[in-house]
Amino acid sequence: MKRTHFFAIIFISVASLLYACNNSGSSSASTDKDTKPAFDLTAAKKGVEEGNKAFMELLKKGDSVGVANLYTMDAKLLGPNMPAAVGRSSIQSVLGGFVNAGFTNFSLITTEVWGYENLLSEEGVWALAGKDGKELDRGKYIVLWKMEDGKWKLFRDCWNSDNPPPPPAK
Amino acid sequence: MKRTHFFAIIFISVASLLYACNNSGSSSASTDKDTKPAFDLTAAKKGVEEGNKAFMELLKKGDSVGVANLYTMDAKLLGPNMPAAVGRSSIQSVLGGFVNAGFTNFSLITTEVWGYENLLSEEGVWALAGKDGKELDRGKYIVLWKMEDGKWKLFRDCWNSDNPPPPPAK
Repeated sequence: MKRTHFFAIIFISVASLLYACNNSGSSSASTDKDTKPAFDLTAAKKGVEEGNKAFMELLKKGDSVGVANLYTMDAKLLGPNMPAAVGRSSIQSVLGGFVNAGFTNFSLITTEVWGYENLLSEEGVWALAGKDGKELDRGKYIVLWKMEDGKWKLFRDCWNSDNPPPPPAK
Repeated sequence: MKRTHFFAIIFISVASLLYACNNSGSSSASTDKDTKPAFDLTAAKKGVEEGNKAFMELLKKGDSVGVANLYTMDAKLLGPNMPAAVGRSSIQSVLGGFVNAGFTNFSLITTEVWGYENLLSEEGVWALAGKDGKELDRGKYIVLWKMEDGKWKLFRDCWNSDNPPPPPAK
């Protein structure tokens, strides 16, 4: 074997090794790229904030269909002193009842949001005011949010009042 | 340079390359080992089931301290027609009130659990029976569970009744 051939073989061998070594590195890098990006809780919180803002604005207008569309198709409205309303159309009729009763002036304040890409859990406080702005009731809630059609929507909505129940209507 | 020296240098170079290549592989393998195992929702659901079982048993015995210990230190009891009870000692006094009122015979049935390693969200239905076993009330709840001291504990507990409020006591 000529000395030049020998060097050529050594060169190719080392180059192949370096390539293999480097390639194994880049293949693991591409695996990292394939991994889902870290869950962005800040963006999710913004989705909850937007959902609550739309909730308050649409309910104030008496748009129970618009508010119902903020819930997932399979949502459950877990309201106090009523059975669970299951599914968007049942939820819409409960919300229609709120509108008819004049319960449209709600404020929702998020206390905290926890979650991951499949589900958010929100804790908050709510208040209901009359048309004159006077507070009628207040309480707390836990809402579970789920992504549907690219938006965070209410999936479970459980709330209650801080106040003793009002005396029954005469 | 002697031919044998030359081969020795080539051998050492190739061996070093192989070692470096192999070592980078094993270091990425150890990174994989360091990564947390996939979240086990089945095990988490079992934790919730055990928590609820202990809740029912301890409350039936009137052990409000035992039930309060199923809540995290920073838990919030978000009960209907009362302000939020914040922290384990406040929760214990509300539970003590339940015991004094004879509200100890609760059944809790989990409907669904969602979650990840930091937080579980449970949906369920509850019923309260009197000492004679007759149902007094029933409703639904959302409980958020958090890991504390190696156990899933109640972190937020929001419930309400399916029934209209009872008439106020005379």
